[in-house]
Amino acid sequence: MSAIEPQPSTRYQQLADHYAAAIHSGTLQPGKRLPAIRRVADTQSVSVNTVINAWQLLEDRGLIEARPQSGYYVRAVLPGVEKKSRHRAQVASVSSAKLDLIEAVFAAQNHPDYTNISLACPQDGELYPTARLARITTTLLRRNPLMIGKYALPPGSERLREEIARRALNAGMSLTPQAITVTHGCMEALQLALRTVTKPGDCVGLESPTYFFLFTLLDSLGLKAIEIPTDPQHGLSLDALELLLREKRINALIAMPGIQNPLGCSMPLESKKRLAKLVNTWQIPLIEDGLYDELQFHAPLSPTVKSFDEAGWVIYCTSYTKTVAPDFRIGWMAAGRFSEQIARLKAVSSMAESALLSETLAEFLASGGYDHHLRHLRRRYAANLDEARSLIARHFPAGTRATLPQGGFVFWLELPGNVDSIALFHRLLQEKICVTPGSLYTLSDRGAHALRLSCCYPFEARYRYAIARTGALACEMSGIAPEN
Amino acid sequence: MSAIEPQPSTRYQQLADHYAAAIHSGTLQPGKRLPAIRRVADTQSVSVNTVINAWQLLEDRGLIEARPQSGYYVRAVLPGVEKKSRHRAQVASVSSAKLDLIEAVFAAQNHPDYTNISLACPQDGELYPTARLARITTTLLRRNPLMIGKYALPPGSERLREEIARRALNAGMSLTPQAITVTHGCMEALQLALRTVTKPGDCVGLESPTYFFLFTLLDSLGLKAIEIPTDPQHGLSLDALELLLREKRINALIAMPGIQNPLGCSMPLESKKRLAKLVNTWQIPLIEDGLYDELQFHAPLSPTVKSFDEAGWVIYCTSYTKTVAPDFRIGWMAAGRFSEQIARLKAVSSMAESALLSETLAEFLASGGYDHHLRHLRRRYAANLDEARSLIARHFPAGTRATLPQGGFVFWLELPGNVDSIALFHRLLQEKICVTPGSLYTLSDRGAHALRLSCCYPFEARYRYAIARTGALACEMSGIAPEN
Repeated sequence: MSAIEPQPSTRYQQLADHYAAAIHSGTLQPGKRLPAIRRVADTQSVSVNTVINAWQLLEDRGLIEARPQSGYYVRAVLPGVEKKSRHRAQVASVSSAKLDLIEAVFAAQNHPDYTNISLACPQDGELYPTARLARITTTLLRRNPLMIGKYALPPGSERLREEIARRALNAGMSLTPQAITVTHGCMEALQLALRTVTKPGDCVGLESPTYFFLFTLLDSLGLKAIEIPTDPQHGLSLDALELLLREKRINALIAMPGIQNPLGCSMPLESKKRLAKLVNTWQIPLIEDGLYDELQFHAPLSPTVKSFDEAGWVIYCTSYTKTVAPDFRIGWMAAGRFSEQIARLKAVSSMAESALLSETLAEFLASGGYDHHLRHLRRRYAANLDEARSLIARHFPAGTRATLPQGGFVFWLELPGNVDSIALFHRLLQEKICVTPGSLYTLSDRGAHALRLSCCYPFEARYRYAIARTGALACEMSGIAPEN
Repeated sequence: MSAIEPQPSTRYQQLADHYAAAIHSGTLQPGKRLPAIRRVADTQSVSVNTVINAWQLLEDRGLIEARPQSGYYVRAVLPGVEKKSRHRAQVASVSSAKLDLIEAVFAAQNHPDYTNISLACPQDGELYPTARLARITTTLLRRNPLMIGKYALPPGSERLREEIARRALNAGMSLTPQAITVTHGCMEALQLALRTVTKPGDCVGLESPTYFFLFTLLDSLGLKAIEIPTDPQHGLSLDALELLLREKRINALIAMPGIQNPLGCSMPLESKKRLAKLVNTWQIPLIEDGLYDELQFHAPLSPTVKSFDEAGWVIYCTSYTKTVAPDFRIGWMAAGRFSEQIARLKAVSSMAESALLSETLAEFLASGGYDHHLRHLRRRYAANLDEARSLIARHFPAGTRATLPQGGFVFWLELPGNVDSIALFHRLLQEKICVTPGSLYTLSDRGAHALRLSCCYPFEARYRYAIARTGALACEMSGIAPEN
């Protein structure tokens, strides 16, 4: 790190050092034009001559070059430029290998050359009502650009909370706008819920397999994960849960009874009622992750566990990121008996959500067409899943088992013949195909031969190829041919 | 809580119960029109007749009424409607009285009838480049509405991080874009920093007085606050800090060396260097809150403590909420040796920030005019502060002491004659004037007779009146007249 200090005698040297550091650290990259001399003089409160002297020094050091009638530029070839940050994190967390894996998947996902058949991050803008949302945002800004200049204060947009409460009725939940906290996606909702109902050292029950970031989140809060068997068709085992409750082995529970990630399954209505009863009886907070609830193929929507919550032990968390506007990152939670604490924690954790984005979403929800859009999404995802399953039947080793999702766009595949799914992941990455290895979703062995695939991508030729190619490699690695 | 369950025999009764619950809970408010019968039939997958029967039942119960040619409405007067959530938080935190106070202030701030001379939440859209930001957002949406349909993935907008790194040079910081994490305002940056460098039970050094939400944030993380004497002109006492470091009594430190909130003071350059040296020598993380740094009246900007950070122990946190776009809630942090951990924690805490808002901000920063805008803001705030101080000299009891801010828009007032500032706050609230009592900013007695005032509001007649009236009441309560 370097700093500017006003000592007139060597002012130009200091200025030169300052910019040299910026060049060496990569902040000013090769080929970049330096700011105009007069402007630098202005910002740094020095004379034009001081800047000229500093630039000459940098030129002498081989760091910049003058281009006729154009100004000074950072030289394209530099001696020993340090590209990465000098400081590395000291502490390696238990799940750091997992995180490396997740980051590799994210990085591939961000790269246009990779074909992603893995992450549940819809990148197909065409699937969403983007044109309509853009029109609403633009209209709001035209009518009242000053809203950008106002502070987004907790508890956030009342209009949005009213719309959320009204729509929650469709999933069987009778909520007041005051009981709802708008959050930065479902991820923040889960984080706030855990921070409210647990303390470090506590044990949290999780479905097995479950969403990979839950392990990292628990880890970051000093919480222990207890994995509970989860059936690929009926979800969380309530018998196993009851045993844990009787033995007082968990302090809280996270589950996805609506549509489970990564299995894609849905808990039967009777089980949801029993789950609500269990957590209310044992007074153990259930964090109900309803992220995919509105993408259930079943109509009308099956009620949430929260619908049967007698004494407020269920904290319902969800988001509009998977259904309306992935970029807005607007989620919400209804926290029952913990509502007040959650609202306060949100305020000191990240204050509130943007009014512009919240009002855009509220206007979209109020003006109708959301149900129509949801039907369109569900049809599309159901069709994608069908097609993916038929490709799997054709190209994957005989004995491959795939779950049959009842909504959403992800499913779980178990490969026969001891195929190591991390090895498969790395081989596919070399071919610029990105899947997610099952071991990210559980601390047990269950994921070692499993993959999660996602169907939120347009089913173009290259996606079909990527699935087929994944199957071909799995056949090669297992030595087992497809069924037909 | 109630839920819908498909049992054909009593389907209409269940539907009626469901809507009755929504009415009783306030989700459907008096005077609201019920959704169209055909639409309800559609969403709930029941016949039109079932809905009609349900509506008649609700009418019989006195909950709704039919209006000719218009539909059904919730009746204006309902028997015993329960307005509030039934569940209350069970745990009262130590600072819950404080939180009640903060919430009273926020509520008043949100109310157009109140004159707010207290909170540091700029609500004067005119002060910000809102028209220009609105144009940029609109252009981005016109060019690429599909960006709304893409998932905002960590680490977030590279373009914004590049612009942040380039501008950080002006404050003496040489940072790479990779070392920067974009956050949901400065509040989230502080929260992530604390969660990264502390564990529950740890002690955190704070300036005294300091930003009120820091106490709540520490509380929520199980951390203990140790208040360090802070001079109204030179900021944090480094002698006191050194003593604490020698005695190994703190595990981390939060300070605002640039512009301190609530004092408004700035730490001298030599002290900043000493502070950097101290935390690097003792290897104690310093969370440098630079929220108001770009609003320093001094030009060029004085370098940050981070500028002198040798071994990466300084975590710099700041935000564009006070300078460009309060509503966007986009902040950032440069976490030195903790950068990698912070980036990972952000991903599992709230994933990423909206690309639409990030790119809008990046475009604004890249296209010039930010420095011009900052000069305008600084002039405006300096003028507001001058005017506020002259009003205080005229209307407040003799012996009132006000700090002399070196930037930003807040300052600290100490009242003579044992005026209880919480009592003053409540009396002013009755007159729809909102100040912040000093006791929010410290756990010590220092705040009992102090107020923080804010000058981020337009200095219209009613603001001048509010300051004068606050002074008049302080005179009345202290029995001391103004000096002149």
